[in-house]
Amino acid sequence: MAGSSYGRLFQITTWGESHGKALGVVIDGTPAGLPLSEADIQVFLDRRKPGQTKISTPRKEADKVEILSGVFEGKTTGTPISLIVHNTSQRSADYSEIANYYRPGHADFTFDAKYGFRDYRGGGRSSARETIGRVAAGAVASKILNSLGITLTAYTRSIGPVTIDDLAFDARAILETPTCMPDYKASKKAEAYLDECMKSHDSAGGVIECLINGCPAGIGEPVFDKLDASLAKAIMSIGAVKAVEIGDGTQVASCKGSENNDAFIMQGDKITKATNHAGGILGGISDGSTIILRAHVKPTPSIFSTQQTVNKQGENIEISIKGRHDPVVVPRAVVVVESMAAITILDALLLNMGATMDHLYKIYKQ
Amino acid sequence: MAGSSYGRLFQITTWGESHGKALGVVIDGTPAGLPLSEADIQVFLDRRKPGQTKISTPRKEADKVEILSGVFEGKTTGTPISLIVHNTSQRSADYSEIANYYRPGHADFTFDAKYGFRDYRGGGRSSARETIGRVAAGAVASKILNSLGITLTAYTRSIGPVTIDDLAFDARAILETPTCMPDYKASKKAEAYLDECMKSHDSAGGVIECLINGCPAGIGEPVFDKLDASLAKAIMSIGAVKAVEIGDGTQVASCKGSENNDAFIMQGDKITKATNHAGGILGGISDGSTIILRAHVKPTPSIFSTQQTVNKQGENIEISIKGRHDPVVVPRAVVVVESMAAITILDALLLNMGATMDHLYKIYKQ
Amino acid sequence: MAGSSYGRLFQITTWGESHGKALGVVIDGTPAGLPLSEADIQVFLDRRKPGQTKISTPRKEADKVEILSGVFEGKTTGTPISLIVHNTSQRSADYSEIANYYRPGHADFTFDAKYGFRDYRGGGRSSARETIGRVAAGAVASKILNSLGITLTAYTRSIGPVTIDDLAFDARAILETPTCMPDYKASKKAEAYLDECMKSHDSAGGVIECLINGCPAGIGEPVFDKLDASLAKAIMSIGAVKAVEIGDGTQVASCKGSENNDAFIMQGDKITKATNHAGGILGGISDGSTIILRAHVKPTPSIFSTQQTVNKQGENIEISIKGRHDPVVVPRAVVVVESMAAITILDALLLNMGATMDHLYKIYKQ
Amino acid sequence: MAGSSYGRLFQITTWGESHGKALGVVIDGTPAGLPLSEADIQVFLDRRKPGQTKISTPRKEADKVEILSGVFEGKTTGTPISLIVHNTSQRSADYSEIANYYRPGHADFTFDAKYGFRDYRGGGRSSARETIGRVAAGAVASKILNSLGITLTAYTRSIGPVTIDDLAFDARAILETPTCMPDYKASKKAEAYLDECMKSHDSAGGVIECLINGCPAGIGEPVFDKLDASLAKAIMSIGAVKAVEIGDGTQVASCKGSENNDAFIMQGDKITKATNHAGGILGGISDGSTIILRAHVKPTPSIFSTQQTVNKQGENIEISIKGRHDPVVVPRAVVVVESMAAITILDALLLNMGATMDHLYKIYKQ
Repeated sequence: MAGSSYGRLFQITTWGESHGKALGVVIDGTPAGLPLSEADIQVFLDRRKPGQTKISTPRKEADKVEILSGVFEGKTTGTPISLIVHNTSQRSADYSEIANYYRPGHADFTFDAKYGFRDYRGGGRSSARETIGRVAAGAVASKILNSLGITLTAYTRSIGPVTIDDLAFDARAILETPTCMPDYKASKKAEAYLDECMKSHDSAGGVIECLINGCPAGIGEPVFDKLDASLAKAIMSIGAVKAVEIGDGTQVASCKGSENNDAFIMQGDKITKATNHAGGILGGISDGSTIILRAHVKPTPSIFSTQQTVNKQGENIEISIKGRHDPVVVPRAVVVVESMAAITILDALLLNMGATMDHLYKIYKQ
Repeated sequence: MAGSSYGRLFQITTWGESHGKALGVVIDGTPAGLPLSEADIQVFLDRRKPGQTKISTPRKEADKVEILSGVFEGKTTGTPISLIVHNTSQRSADYSEIANYYRPGHADFTFDAKYGFRDYRGGGRSSARETIGRVAAGAVASKILNSLGITLTAYTRSIGPVTIDDLAFDARAILETPTCMPDYKASKKAEAYLDECMKSHDSAGGVIECLINGCPAGIGEPVFDKLDASLAKAIMSIGAVKAVEIGDGTQVASCKGSENNDAFIMQGDKITKATNHAGGILGGISDGSTIILRAHVKPTPSIFSTQQTVNKQGENIEISIKGRHDPVVVPRAVVVVESMAAITILDALLLNMGATMDHLYKIYKQ
Repeated sequence: MAGSSYGRLFQITTWGESHGKALGVVIDGTPAGLPLSEADIQVFLDRRKPGQTKISTPRKEADKVEILSGVFEGKTTGTPISLIVHNTSQRSADYSEIANYYRPGHADFTFDAKYGFRDYRGGGRSSARETIGRVAAGAVASKILNSLGITLTAYTRSIGPVTIDDLAFDARAILETPTCMPDYKASKKAEAYLDECMKSHDSAGGVIECLINGCPAGIGEPVFDKLDASLAKAIMSIGAVKAVEIGDGTQVASCKGSENNDAFIMQGDKITKATNHAGGILGGISDGSTIILRAHVKPTPSIFSTQQTVNKQGENIEISIKGRHDPVVVPRAVVVVESMAAITILDALLLNMGATMDHLYKIYKQ
Repeated sequence: MAGSSYGRLFQITTWGESHGKALGVVIDGTPAGLPLSEADIQVFLDRRKPGQTKISTPRKEADKVEILSGVFEGKTTGTPISLIVHNTSQRSADYSEIANYYRPGHADFTFDAKYGFRDYRGGGRSSARETIGRVAAGAVASKILNSLGITLTAYTRSIGPVTIDDLAFDARAILETPTCMPDYKASKKAEAYLDECMKSHDSAGGVIECLINGCPAGIGEPVFDKLDASLAKAIMSIGAVKAVEIGDGTQVASCKGSENNDAFIMQGDKITKATNHAGGILGGISDGSTIILRAHVKPTPSIFSTQQTVNKQGENIEISIKGRHDPVVVPRAVVVVESMAAITILDALLLNMGATMDHLYKIYKQ
């Protein structure tokens, strides 16, 4: 399978370049009978839409999604769902200059190294616009998960040096603040920090956290397709992510077994855990508690300040990247992380359906 | 594909339980014509063998590998290589007790939740012995990579609070110290720390780092099969790993674009980078510089001190785990990380062979 | 992977329903650097276009293909090629009636059995229009194969009782006759036979043959991914195909080893075969001679004459299918067979690139 | 995925050569909780065992299967089942001669063309002994299918010119006759025919038919993973099979729609069909009636009579193949066809579990 498909049973295949005619995704493996409309998907796409606040690019994209197949009389048919978003704002002129050199922190050089040439317009295939397909598919996956009582909540944990205060956690703030932080105060601080960055022609990174509640115990495959391994791939496949943590993540390395182990305890007649350092996954399989993951996002590589690089003639040159770019990509990547997590959890649920003879009997025994 | 196979073209399938008759791996997709002997593989297995030092379990396993197929007259034939290691030390008695309760930090509970029951002897399928198959396959992958000028070096970066001093880096120490640290002084400190842990009936975690040199630019697929995404899955699929970093990893979140971008510069007529914050990967594709990854490993969940848990009767109980277990798994996991990275890089090299028409012409044009 | 994708490395994913907004295909894994235009693809699509002769449905579809991604400055970029064909003629009215009963020989009943309901308009996803995506992808695969000296020629071998005369074989006739037979005389006879069928409100089947020349020896994987096994799946996945033969096919069952074996002989310094009963494949791997396959196609299930069936209310009823349908699908399926064979051969060529260390050295050894 | 694995969710990976130390299979994806013993598997293996009658090779192989993993306390655990059969009779001397030339009808030449060299002992990887792994896995798949009320019956339909009389069909004869024909009279005739073949130093082919009863309607995926397409690949992947038919197969090409369509009729409150020309599959999805497939098997290529071929020095030579070989492989291939069909049907059942939201609710809705 080539690299633009993801998922074993709920499989998405994204296509499209930043400045091509359109971008889209084909979703194969959606169970039949799910009520689905373009509005269900648009809600998710609007969360990643640019041009909404001063901290995101002025590029104005309608990013209206259209369902081309797989839905009939308001319900999924079980056949491929083809979703398309047309590119309405193609100011290619902005990008003509970069055709001839390699932007630091971007994939210009590696694409040329791999393919011999590249669509240099706005990053082409390596543009963040590729995530439109992921988010559209994430909306479908999330709707299925919600109908099973599983919910995902992703948000910005930190931007540069500004981190949220867990005690001030307020879910409403995620959709109301330009930073997608669940903490109004921290968000204001982060906005101020981003103003500085812009003034100094620089950019910032941050951390995105995602909580998955309601996932039953027993999901995920042991060995190579561990649920945390699949989540790690899904999240690391998002451009700009350079580290992925599950539960206590990097902190486990420096603590002791007696501190890191989660004790099992009975809650009524249900087995639960006294703590959740593991982040809801043991041995690659969900344990019924909240699944917790974090993605560490690098600062936007496109900055106005002067940078060293080389051109195709093999000359050392100095550049200053013009055009439109965000001082931080974290807030717009929040819904991408949530979408990739949703697709991964749904795929794991589908893979788990054949785990026991009891499951087979439930579906097939007359 | 079920969860015990890994790799698209260089595909490994591991099998076996801690206390079953044997464990092994089937490697499908090895290019024909590679000189290969059991000795090539044994060298890698010996690096993960238990019972070698006081900081690893006294369990004595020969762990002698046998090639059952796929090699003829000393060379790989291109057909599946079946490798087997027989379990010689099966002190099942040690484990009879744990059949009835769930060990904190282990997969006992999640296996029961998924499958309804489990092979409780020594962790069964979730035992670290499963990695025998990964390491055996890693030896084959590494031999192929080496013949192409690509080398991997994994080592312990830290154990508990003790971290190596990069200025004291000495590769020979990796194989000579019981901690697999490339720093003799730090290793001594770590050993002292582990002595404390054992005295207090506790355990420690740590960080494993892997450097991949000589990988050509252009390897890895954009979008979902990014090289860093595949590496993240490969490494996170190793039991006890809770976080994976590429290059500067978690640090990128708090630094600025001007600090994180790597400037391209000409080195003679070759394009290279002035720094390597990216860890050798841009846009999911190798850039020709050293690929750097880190795995954060949790402390051994099996500890002698008393712990809270529940039994199958749904009663809260207190346990103290007997039997044999390491105070730290990090040193023995070093070769596992190196192996999974080697398998992933080789698979990416094979996937890249069809990336351009030029490659097809090189192989097929008459 | 769900069922609308085909191919391991050259992977196509088709989508769309007969009467939806559009149909299309996403091709992932096309090598970069192939000159490609919409015209290259349109030539293939025009070969399957309906409404061209009196023996194919009067439905007039422009079936104009549009490239949405993956091609830049006239060359493939190595990223997904998204192709779309809009449905311009959607006379859904014609189909409203069939919503309530199950047409014999069609997938109406089985879709309901699987998914609970279906898009009943013109067969929905099970319509022959799904093959638009296959043919569009086949055009791309064929262009790559041609550049490597591999050519495919598919044609109608028989329609009903009328079979071509091998001595009268004339390749020009394939594109010039409405039957796609390489024999002008046989084609006339077949047309007469089809006239009868139409007069008697009935339909006909036939046999499609495909010859693949120039395929090097050594392509295809032993065991499960044998080249003939992959071709069998590719061809049998075309609606209406009920049997697939390789080389002498069904005849081998009744002949003797001494008759069926192909003797190897030297032709100059090249190893070749005196005969080709095997159809170019031995042990699942190409032997360098012409690859020969045949698909047996059933008569069009949609006929005007009265048929017995049941409706959704579970009543036995009599129906007579109105609307537009071909008396035979064979001629239009010829290019579909050729396309699926091309995609399969290309995928096998790509899979074979990693078969030997020599291949790796050719691509990667400095 | 390399070529020695088959199946998406119930995935088997076979390994081993004719004269290596052993052969085996790893089965990943077996649902947990299935009672399974070595005896369950041995019954199937004994059906393909050589040296049982005068019409099969005198080679005596115990072919005793051993379960190495995946079964605990008599039940499958859901983890990989590793099965091994040791090669006890390795008369390699018999084969030393063929190392230097290419046997007509065998894979000697194509393996060399692909890999550069081959394990020439007894056909190496291309030996019929590879099917040991398929049959062992088929036994597991069949046991699961049986527990769901699905049964498979494969038998020899014809050998050379001798075909069974459907009116004389007697299932007991399948296991009692050396030909595996369900017709004692026909079997005697076939044996006489095989005697002639042996006297004339020649060999025979034949046809294997497989009936699958009890498969519910709705199994199989539309488009590329049609149930008949998957069966075609599974069966064509068996060495010596040159044609595959579903239902009426090749006959459909010459009959009319009115003859080939199966009318739907109500049987009580159940929808069934008046006839079964389709062989139980419509649009790639099972329709609830008996699934019927046929495999056409070529005559054994190894014959004693003199044949033309070439040697590695590129010289035309004459050979007469010594050693042990069957005059016909059909009877021993019967259980292989049944096994591959069972594996394919089970995999399709597992893939179908996520087809509808109703299925998800049955498994996951609290």
